[in-house]
Amino acid sequence: MNNIYGLDIWGNSNFIIEDGKICLNTDFKLPIIDVVKEIRKDGIKGPILLRFPHLIKKQIVEIYSNFNRAKKEFDYSGNFSAVYPLKVNQYPGFVKNLVEIGKPFNYGLEAGSKPELLLAMAYNNFEAPITVNGFKDKELINIGFIAAEMGHDITLTIEGLSELESIIKTSKERFSTCPKIGLRIRLHTSGSGIWAKSGGMDSKFGLTATELIEAVNLLKSANLLHKFTMIHFHIGSQINEIHPLKKALTEAGNIYAELRKMDAKNLTAINLGGGLAVEYSQTRELATRNYTLKEYANDVIFLLKTIANSKNVTEPDIFIESGRFVAASHAVLTAPVLELFSKEYAEEKLISKDENPPLVLELYDLYKNIKPSNALEYLHDSIAHMESILTLFDLGYADLTDRSNAEILTHLIMKKAISMLGNKQSYTDLLKIQKQVQEKYLVNFSMFQSLPDFWGLKQHFPIMPLEKLDERATRSASIWDITCDSDGEINFDPNINPLFLHDIDPQEENYFLAFFLVGAYQEVLGMNHNLFTHPTEATVYLKENGGFEIKNILESQSVLDILEDMDYDVYEIQDILSDRVKNSILLDDNEKKQILGELYLFLNDNGYLKSIG
Amino acid sequence: MNNIYGLDIWGNSNFIIEDGKICLNTDFKLPIIDVVKEIRKDGIKGPILLRFPHLIKKQIVEIYSNFNRAKKEFDYSGNFSAVYPLKVNQYPGFVKNLVEIGKPFNYGLEAGSKPELLLAMAYNNFEAPITVNGFKDKELINIGFIAAEMGHDITLTIEGLSELESIIKTSKERFSTCPKIGLRIRLHTSGSGIWAKSGGMDSKFGLTATELIEAVNLLKSANLLHKFTMIHFHIGSQINEIHPLKKALTEAGNIYAELRKMDAKNLTAINLGGGLAVEYSQTRELATRNYTLKEYANDVIFLLKTIANSKNVTEPDIFIESGRFVAASHAVLTAPVLELFSKEYAEEKLISKDENPPLVLELYDLYKNIKPSNALEYLHDSIAHMESILTLFDLGYADLTDRSNAEILTHLIMKKAISMLGNKQSYTDLLKIQKQVQEKYLVNFSMFQSLPDFWGLKQHFPIMPLEKLDERATRSASIWDITCDSDGEINFDPNINPLFLHDIDPQEENYFLAFFLVGAYQEVLGMNHNLFTHPTEATVYLKENGGFEIKNILESQSVLDILEDMDYDVYEIQDILSDRVKNSILLDDNEKKQILGELYLFLNDNGYLKSIG
Repeated sequence: MNNIYGLDIWGNSNFIIEDGKICLNTDFKLPIIDVVKEIRKDGIKGPILLRFPHLIKKQIVEIYSNFNRAKKEFDYSGNFSAVYPLKVNQYPGFVKNLVEIGKPFNYGLEAGSKPELLLAMAYNNFEAPITVNGFKDKELINIGFIAAEMGHDITLTIEGLSELESIIKTSKERFSTCPKIGLRIRLHTSGSGIWAKSGGMDSKFGLTATELIEAVNLLKSANLLHKFTMIHFHIGSQINEIHPLKKALTEAGNIYAELRKMDAKNLTAINLGGGLAVEYSQTRELATRNYTLKEYANDVIFLLKTIANSKNVTEPDIFIESGRFVAASHAVLTAPVLELFSKEYAEEKLISKDENPPLVLELYDLYKNIKPSNALEYLHDSIAHMESILTLFDLGYADLTDRSNAEILTHLIMKKAISMLGNKQSYTDLLKIQKQVQEKYLVNFSMFQSLPDFWGLKQHFPIMPLEKLDERATRSASIWDITCDSDGEINFDPNINPLFLHDIDPQEENYFLAFFLVGAYQEVLGMNHNLFTHPTEATVYLKENGGFEIKNILESQSVLDILEDMDYDVYEIQDILSDRVKNSILLDDNEKKQILGELYLFLNDNGYLKSIG
Repeated sequence: MNNIYGLDIWGNSNFIIEDGKICLNTDFKLPIIDVVKEIRKDGIKGPILLRFPHLIKKQIVEIYSNFNRAKKEFDYSGNFSAVYPLKVNQYPGFVKNLVEIGKPFNYGLEAGSKPELLLAMAYNNFEAPITVNGFKDKELINIGFIAAEMGHDITLTIEGLSELESIIKTSKERFSTCPKIGLRIRLHTSGSGIWAKSGGMDSKFGLTATELIEAVNLLKSANLLHKFTMIHFHIGSQINEIHPLKKALTEAGNIYAELRKMDAKNLTAINLGGGLAVEYSQTRELATRNYTLKEYANDVIFLLKTIANSKNVTEPDIFIESGRFVAASHAVLTAPVLELFSKEYAEEKLISKDENPPLVLELYDLYKNIKPSNALEYLHDSIAHMESILTLFDLGYADLTDRSNAEILTHLIMKKAISMLGNKQSYTDLLKIQKQVQEKYLVNFSMFQSLPDFWGLKQHFPIMPLEKLDERATRSASIWDITCDSDGEINFDPNINPLFLHDIDPQEENYFLAFFLVGAYQEVLGMNHNLFTHPTEATVYLKENGGFEIKNILESQSVLDILEDMDYDVYEIQDILSDRVKNSILLDDNEKKQILGELYLFLNDNGYLKSIG
């Protein structure tokens, strides 16, 4: 029953279901719901983003151990290094843990802008590499020089010749230390997957063969050729198939050998960029990644060794810049269900009339006579009748009571059909009627803030309830967020990726959903639609004795903080509100005092919903 | 020539081209480039968002005058009111102007969350209406009551029965004043366009007939039926066709009449929500809006009058909540081009070899013999040859020099072909080769921050250069932003929506692009990808004598501000950086002092690119 959430597909053994609860799959099997309850004890409501540092460590260890194993297996002489691209998640709750965990591996950071580079210069482990990608102006190049002057092992990746000219100029203006230089190469072999356009001749980045030759000549005449140490490529984020990577490696290996022939003696490294995929799918049919990290490491090492040998050049050092693979699994968003939207229909709500339209009478017959063998057929009939009633209403041939009676009967038929079909062993029949009977679960979160890739790329993230996993979930669900935007819905196609949740009464019990694999990109791409901001976050450290410690709880921004960020004068806002209360002719002095106190609390509280979950 | 940017399609007579510059179409025809230059005088670089309050006023006036005219024309007795939905743009530079301009019209505000409601309570013109949509918890309802107690004319729109129960409960707990109550109705007729799912029986919002009846009964027994004044619906944002609106009005009119029959005597208003479309298209074929505001107003008034008369009920007051229509045109994003990416190829860069592959020799022949009559054919041949050379390179049969020579020759052939075809009167031939010869314009802005709807919905915004509009633009363009994300590209399909720009050298001249109609949603949905934040903004007031005044310049956030917003300890960052500089063994004391000064400046400057535009 548990496999309806596809834990075995996307879970990477990080979680396990025990006693109906989703738990961390470590020695002591900590239920996530226990962590949520602990945090909510202090009155925190709304969505909570949980960070699990042990899952960061797991990914980092996995990368290094696989590449080191492959190096040994193929007797590869080049070094292996990795850097984490800050753009994937720049939040301190993640970055500071990552840097700490990465220390023994000499794990470095990659930056793509001035703020990211300055962040890397402050927090990177001092011996670990820093790479800088993306377009650079003179200022960014100067910051790169400062990093080198501070003693950082930094490589500036050149995206165009004017950047290189700028570096040469800067090296003459500044002190004796110059950063290492990398050249981004433009490959004609391209990636696959949604993000494919990073690769290929038409891609946004990289130098052509002509530009590479010119770059080497420029470096030579500026006496900087010895600083050229790396070529870099990136065939796209979330590479689902390994075949394009193999083609890219062959091309890059050829370019590496050709450039070495041009006296680039210190060119010793090939940087493969990122792209290591994460499996987000909850259904086997939609799973996309067709390789393991082991295959990836083996292919990279084997291919580069083969090319180096055939071209008779030193086996290159290898850099990778995988971010999604490292960051995605560490964060889990949890949020309570606030409301279900179709539970208001009971038989006693039917309003009796002296004369009913024939269609309403027919609906009543269907309701009375539905049984397992005809459930599907009767359900379809009822929906057709309902549609006819709606048309009659528009034309003035049915009134609001008729419309209401038809709604109630149709929903009663649906409910009966679900319970009749839901008792069967298989979900097949339930799936057939899912579209018509989908229940809307209103969840206390903003899809725009917390799952922007669903809005932008229709990227689904694994979703499941934290509890009740030993009870059969019978309601085919769609998820609504609390923004007043009709785009704020995560819909599920019955025949492709159904989501089943439990039939609960949120007024009576807390029912939490968890959204997994949200640690990559979702935070920094978060949108403040309706002024909902970053959810409350907390970091969960597991103790050796089986307990856990919650650190660095950061509550979601208060209303005043949000408005201040937008450059409102928050003192002006408070003054106007006070004045308007004080001037009100509808209130006496005591009432005014109470209201001023209430306003103070509301302005200093966060904007998420509260009282109902 | 100017019509290649489609100003007549999307411009709404707001802009005009004079002396090759795009100007405000007011008495004194102010060129936008003059404003940009004035702001950049103070050393501000990077993208600048310009706000034009006179364009806010124009839209507000247009709405009121059209509805008031239609009311007169059809002798309609209901009132007309409008509120502006804050979610479309909550920034103070817009909102404060809007409220000021809206005062004579009694133009109100709509809120969809706690922060938005508190904002409305502070800044709304005191007599003007406030409506509150979206899901509400007890706290949000309490804030709504406070607004009423302060004296605001506020209507809470109920999205579900539990909200209504919460209101009834609150009314018993609080003082004597209760806000007005609106009921969101669920229509079975649905909208059209990208945002269509707001409407329809499956939509995120609204009460069914059964729930409406129950709501009225609940209100009756709580003695609050007299506070029920409005029904509300919203068939979707950016409605391109008026037909679905007409169907929705018929259905809503019927529901209005039915509810009036149920003793809801104070129910006097129908709120149509938003949806008034903005035409974003730059090409006639892609234009989507099939109605004018005049038709919209006429249809609304005429239909509601007809239904009211046929049902024998009072003609309802009309509310609208159009936001996009009011906000979109007031903001223009301007950004300089930093670089063009295919200008590095000159004949003298060809590297002579003793023996060249036959394909390279053939490319050379094509280059020498290309002429207008064979230009298209030779271009296609050259691209095929280029592709073959790339394959040979991967297989080790061509070296880097061969690859470079092939690139240079192919690009030289392209350039020749463009100039041969570009001299002709028509763009038809240029269009044919556009895909192969598209030039990438690197522009100093973040698409994720400033045009999120392009990323999320592939919504194109009108783009054109600020100057050179009297010179023929011959380069078929695609736009790159400065994020290190391959998604940060605005691509144009040659056969559907080509964009032509000028062939310029950005090292030699400033060339600014403007992105129009970005005033709705783009700011609050802006994503901080790579930590690029909201661009510098400025408000431009036109003076009666033809001059202009720039007010409220807000520079883009500094690096430290961004990091502080993410909850970094910026003092810790500064300390670590200082320590690392001070401990560097690569620097003497004077150098350290200089670097500390430089770091201070970089940390307090914004993150956009600078030196090259």
